[in-house]
Amino acid sequence: MNGHFLSFFYYSPLSTDGGGVTVHAPATVANMVCGFDVLGFAVKEPYDEMHICFTGKPGITIINKDDYNLPTDPEKNVAGAALLAMMEEIDEPLGFELQIRKRIKPGSGVGSSAASAAGAVVAANHLLQNRFSREDLVRFAMNGEKLASGVKHADNIAPCIYGGVTLIRSIFPLDIVSLAAPPLYVTIVHPQIEVRTSDARGILKRQVQLKDAIRQWGNIAGLVAGLLKNDYDLIGRSLEDVLIEPVRSILIPGFDEVKSRSKAAGALGGGISGSGPSIFMLSKDETTAEGVKQEMHAVYERLGLEHHTYLTTINNEGVKLIKN
Amino acid sequence: MNGHFLSFFYYSPLSTDGGGVTVHAPATVANMVCGFDVLGFAVKEPYDEMHICFTGKPGITIINKDDYNLPTDPEKNVAGAALLAMMEEIDEPLGFELQIRKRIKPGSGVGSSAASAAGAVVAANHLLQNRFSREDLVRFAMNGEKLASGVKHADNIAPCIYGGVTLIRSIFPLDIVSLAAPPLYVTIVHPQIEVRTSDARGILKRQVQLKDAIRQWGNIAGLVAGLLKNDYDLIGRSLEDVLIEPVRSILIPGFDEVKSRSKAAGALGGGISGSGPSIFMLSKDETTAEGVKQEMHAVYERLGLEHHTYLTTINNEGVKLIKN
Repeated sequence: MNGHFLSFFYYSPLSTDGGGVTVHAPATVANMVCGFDVLGFAVKEPYDEMHICFTGKPGITIINKDDYNLPTDPEKNVAGAALLAMMEEIDEPLGFELQIRKRIKPGSGVGSSAASAAGAVVAANHLLQNRFSREDLVRFAMNGEKLASGVKHADNIAPCIYGGVTLIRSIFPLDIVSLAAPPLYVTIVHPQIEVRTSDARGILKRQVQLKDAIRQWGNIAGLVAGLLKNDYDLIGRSLEDVLIEPVRSILIPGFDEVKSRSKAAGALGGGISGSGPSIFMLSKDETTAEGVKQEMHAVYERLGLEHHTYLTTINNEGVKLIKN
Repeated sequence: MNGHFLSFFYYSPLSTDGGGVTVHAPATVANMVCGFDVLGFAVKEPYDEMHICFTGKPGITIINKDDYNLPTDPEKNVAGAALLAMMEEIDEPLGFELQIRKRIKPGSGVGSSAASAAGAVVAANHLLQNRFSREDLVRFAMNGEKLASGVKHADNIAPCIYGGVTLIRSIFPLDIVSLAAPPLYVTIVHPQIEVRTSDARGILKRQVQLKDAIRQWGNIAGLVAGLLKNDYDLIGRSLEDVLIEPVRSILIPGFDEVKSRSKAAGALGGGISGSGPSIFMLSKDETTAEGVKQEMHAVYERLGLEHHTYLTTINNEGVKLIKN
């Protein structure tokens, strides 16, 4: 089952009401191996499509234009939760109608909830003549993440809104740093198993060995330096996670084989995307990334696990306005 | 007692034998707040002066040209230990005479042992027509650190040899990354108390909270990004250590006051140099750094503790050949 994420959704564009704005909100890869909880990046595909417009009556109406049966109660929908947080800081009684066409499968580990939350607030902010800063928008959207996983994390939200690779230096107070990166090809495989973010978080030890933490921060320092210096070899050497991956990867069948075969095929490195089950690999060129995709496919064919693969690149724009 | 480190040593240059080489081996600041065990930088002053030449008979002769009464047995002297490690990889039975004039006070926390070890092997390598790489030299010099502190660490050795700010991404295998940095003024105060590296290491907890480790690697990623992006504000925000400093700073009287007064005087930030007792602060300009120096002086005057202060800049050369 090798193919695009939900490619059957390629049909008519959202909304024909003549008003409002449409955005594409990209998938994102959080954690980035050694950068647990602090690094993430946006990819070009897949992305969610969302349309927002003002309505006459105060409040939020959510219309799902896909088959995921996500909640339409704004307080139970991640996009709704993000919009509600934004509306708390607006003095006027506004009304929004939000149409969502998800193309990023919920629970796949590539920031599906972040795309909904981030897309909604970026789109609404366009309607509001950009009265809020990007950092404000991250703050609002984190309420969607809290609803989805119980934790206000920003390592999917920030790259979704800022684009590129982002560092969350600090979450309280929020400090987001955009990191330039050389061209990178991203291959993602999504084995169709369920890994709940809350389970993936619960499995982690709350204490770690200082020596392991030192190794981890040596790697994250190396990764940041590699990205900013366009040093592919250093990026590759730094893509090592001695703390989280050894614990979480046991939840993902085939993980070790995907990783070793991808690296043998020339990938710089990679690991669990977010809290999984998707696995991502970075490559310097498209041919290598294509080879990595074949290896991923072969592993899950052999295991008899339904899966999707994706070959894309880093998205430097973040949530994109399609029409106004 | 505000003044230069051992400024009374400013007299005739080492060696007048007409042969051999003389080097200046600079002091270094290891750990760099959040970069425990992985980041360090070299400073322009103080530095040790060393002279090496070949002798007729195999082995190492060490002559101390200062008043520290350091061991002259090569196996008990950090420079000797480094040279012995180098000689193990040379097939010929060579003889060296090494004269050392230390200007970096042993035990002050600014890489005195690293300067001896690094200076010795860099100087010897010049005599040997640079047959060894810089990475080899770091490897040899780490034997001096092992003798001094019981641990083969490279966060003083690497910046001493490479100059500038260095990242030790990994110690086994050794992976050293040079990090460009914007101009930075460095103010150091050395309160005249003894903090043994082994004690400073022993006091650390071997386990840390994952949430604290995450905060630490957010900061180190921010610091590396700040250095490479010439972003002084980001450097300042990232100079935070939630793991090591709270434990070790209790060994240094006046630490909290030095830090708060230095930051109030405009320093970007700073912390314990190496394992102490020296404290360093980074500033964007010389006037601020001079103000920081006055604050440091005032704190230790009030406490009645003998101390030395130093105002210098980052040294981008590392061990420097003076004459050949």
